[in-house]
Amino acid sequence: MKQSVLFTKTSKDVAKDEQSLNSQLLIKAGFIDKIMAGVYEFLPLGYRVLKKIEQIIREEMDAIGGQEIFMSALSPKENWQTTNRLDSMDVLFETRGANEESRRVNDGSYILNSTHEEIITPLVKKFALSYKDLPFATYQIQTKFRNEPRPKSGLLRGREFIMKDLYSFHVSEEDMRVYYEVVKEAYFRIFERLGIGETTYITLASGGDFTKDFSHEFQTECPTGEDEIHVCDKCKIALNKEVLDRQDSCPECGTKDLRITKASEVGNIFPLNTKFSKAFDYYFTNEKGEKEIVYMASYGIGPSRLMGVIVEKFADDRGMSWSQSISPYSVHLLSLGQNDEADKIYEKLINEGVEVLYDDRDVSPGIKLADSDLIGCPNRIVISSKTIENNNIEFKKRSQAEPQFLSLEQVLAKLR
Amino acid sequence: MKQSVLFTKTSKDVAKDEQSLNSQLLIKAGFIDKIMAGVYEFLPLGYRVLKKIEQIIREEMDAIGGQEIFMSALSPKENWQTTNRLDSMDVLFETRGANEESRRVNDGSYILNSTHEEIITPLVKKFALSYKDLPFATYQIQTKFRNEPRPKSGLLRGREFIMKDLYSFHVSEEDMRVYYEVVKEAYFRIFERLGIGETTYITLASGGDFTKDFSHEFQTECPTGEDEIHVCDKCKIALNKEVLDRQDSCPECGTKDLRITKASEVGNIFPLNTKFSKAFDYYFTNEKGEKEIVYMASYGIGPSRLMGVIVEKFADDRGMSWSQSISPYSVHLLSLGQNDEADKIYEKLINEGVEVLYDDRDVSPGIKLADSDLIGCPNRIVISSKTIENNNIEFKKRSQAEPQFLSLEQVLAKLR
Repeated sequence: MKQSVLFTKTSKDVAKDEQSLNSQLLIKAGFIDKIMAGVYEFLPLGYRVLKKIEQIIREEMDAIGGQEIFMSALSPKENWQTTNRLDSMDVLFETRGANEESRRVNDGSYILNSTHEEIITPLVKKFALSYKDLPFATYQIQTKFRNEPRPKSGLLRGREFIMKDLYSFHVSEEDMRVYYEVVKEAYFRIFERLGIGETTYITLASGGDFTKDFSHEFQTECPTGEDEIHVCDKCKIALNKEVLDRQDSCPECGTKDLRITKASEVGNIFPLNTKFSKAFDYYFTNEKGEKEIVYMASYGIGPSRLMGVIVEKFADDRGMSWSQSISPYSVHLLSLGQNDEADKIYEKLINEGVEVLYDDRDVSPGIKLADSDLIGCPNRIVISSKTIENNNIEFKKRSQAEPQFLSLEQVLAKLR
Repeated sequence: MKQSVLFTKTSKDVAKDEQSLNSQLLIKAGFIDKIMAGVYEFLPLGYRVLKKIEQIIREEMDAIGGQEIFMSALSPKENWQTTNRLDSMDVLFETRGANEESRRVNDGSYILNSTHEEIITPLVKKFALSYKDLPFATYQIQTKFRNEPRPKSGLLRGREFIMKDLYSFHVSEEDMRVYYEVVKEAYFRIFERLGIGETTYITLASGGDFTKDFSHEFQTECPTGEDEIHVCDKCKIALNKEVLDRQDSCPECGTKDLRITKASEVGNIFPLNTKFSKAFDYYFTNEKGEKEIVYMASYGIGPSRLMGVIVEKFADDRGMSWSQSISPYSVHLLSLGQNDEADKIYEKLINEGVEVLYDDRDVSPGIKLADSDLIGCPNRIVISSKTIENNNIEFKKRSQAEPQFLSLEQVLAKLR
């Protein structure tokens, strides 16, 4: 992609009310734009990152037998009355006609879903009623809505955001626990592929809405993280600060020698047990022809939140730094006033199947180098009069300080 | 995909209030489910079709330089006040906190976007302000909302639906008209790839909200279509019935010998001219440093609507019939009580990269054959004691009446 064609631009400044590091950097780099508090739009570079995160999650959900669906954003109020969450969840949006004419012809009002337990349970109940139909799991990647009172964390907690939510259905608690472990492993593979596997921990947390037991969340170390976690580095398990009064040692090895660090939540999994199946009378028929209650679990990862967390985790004072798997482009090619030669390199890289962002703009070398650090592709190539004279290419990883001077073949070998 | 694993099932009946042919068939086949009037959820088979339609559209938009973004569902009311469409569009949804606590902490209310001219114009104005930045085009594939008073057309006109909306920006009306023709050609390629190219026509229609001129829509012949169009078969152009009082002859060849047929709208393109740039003060600086107004056009295709139209266009009394490019699976493999042999064929087809839905369920041959016609994959393979005895495979196209008996190699050759 040529930057002269890309309709977005980097900007030096960002609105003063933009408080979070992730939204400041993403807006400056032209990855996202804010339309109102807590609501962001994904621009070409940012949407490429989001789609790559989604695709990694999708592949890992498919690999554990998750069947992909796409549920609605709107739902009837009655579904939320059934579970008594219409009032207990203070973040739900309600919707109705915007003007008198619209309200006259359709006087109903609906809920904008912030989660889908109220939707998936009556949905699957239409199909899976025998022990032969269980277990199974289904997921979606979709826009959700929360009426956050004071959204100030950028992509980390918005009024509108993207979620992957997986739901699983079982004949017993034991069977649910087996799949629960399968999903845990899939989550670790996702974080590994996103480039944050080393420093992301399964973390004991309070069960929130769903259970008095501990729930599990995934926390990744992050200098700007909202949470404090206590890590057992040996077992790669952590405790969320909020559970320390009930559990203050590693649940695996028992040590109390835990390392305290800042972290951000990047996923959570809930054993819902029978909370929603009871509310919606979701029973199955067992082998003896008797009715038994269905056990459920739900498993969330927010791709848009993940994008924000990853920005904050890897940012330095020059800008963002994307891992290869989710960077908008693998290579940022900068032409310092040498577009003829850079055009050729661009064509060669494209022909080799490399994803390239090509800064062919008529701006100063200083602006190009600063923008490249801000945008944060993992590999940078500079073409200048000096590299042409020396018949080589300046190649630098975003994570390294010093460039190398290589032949095109050597660069291609590094990119493979 | 084994049907014994798929969590959805076909059903014989559908709710009596389900009036449209597309939703009746899609619900019976387990492709979609209705959560409330005008709001449907896409289940595994249906979501595969939707994603394939979206991907074809995405590729053709990318091919004409469309830059993909993902705008928000929520927007501030002021954007709609700026264009005076808050009241003139009677289908807008408004949203606010669902309960008292939620309304107390955030007393704002927002619009659920039914189209994005009000969003894209102020967004691109932040970036593209010079003649050097123009022209460009950007699009998204995203959920939209319309407070339809009496939704009864299934996926054809819902309260919640998926749209691809492309917007283009230009220095002049002439430049806009040039790109407008480029998009027209891209739309024809999309309809061709979707398998409806032969019988889809560019159609003169009234400009609706945007202009007093004619606008262009794409209409595909469909026996259950809502519209009546008058087709010039020579020029492959049609007139929508509503414009006949202003134009009653082919705009290309002038003939009044037009064929009348039922049709459904599958896309539209609007020269917006300066309506929205004026409303949002969107000017660019020309080569002389003077300010000039930006020209805009918008181009819509609804992937979910398309899915419904295609169901109705090709349905027969046995069920649906998908073209290869968008069928949930290329092959429907039925085992009539011979799962050992069918398992082997399934593995071989998968290894050859064929997308297979495999009916391995313990149900009667009659049910399997009827379900296969209902679901409508383009190719059917039957494994029975008879085919095993004769050492061949029963192969039938959904569109043909009689099966052929072939070797696996012959079947694979037909699928390539």
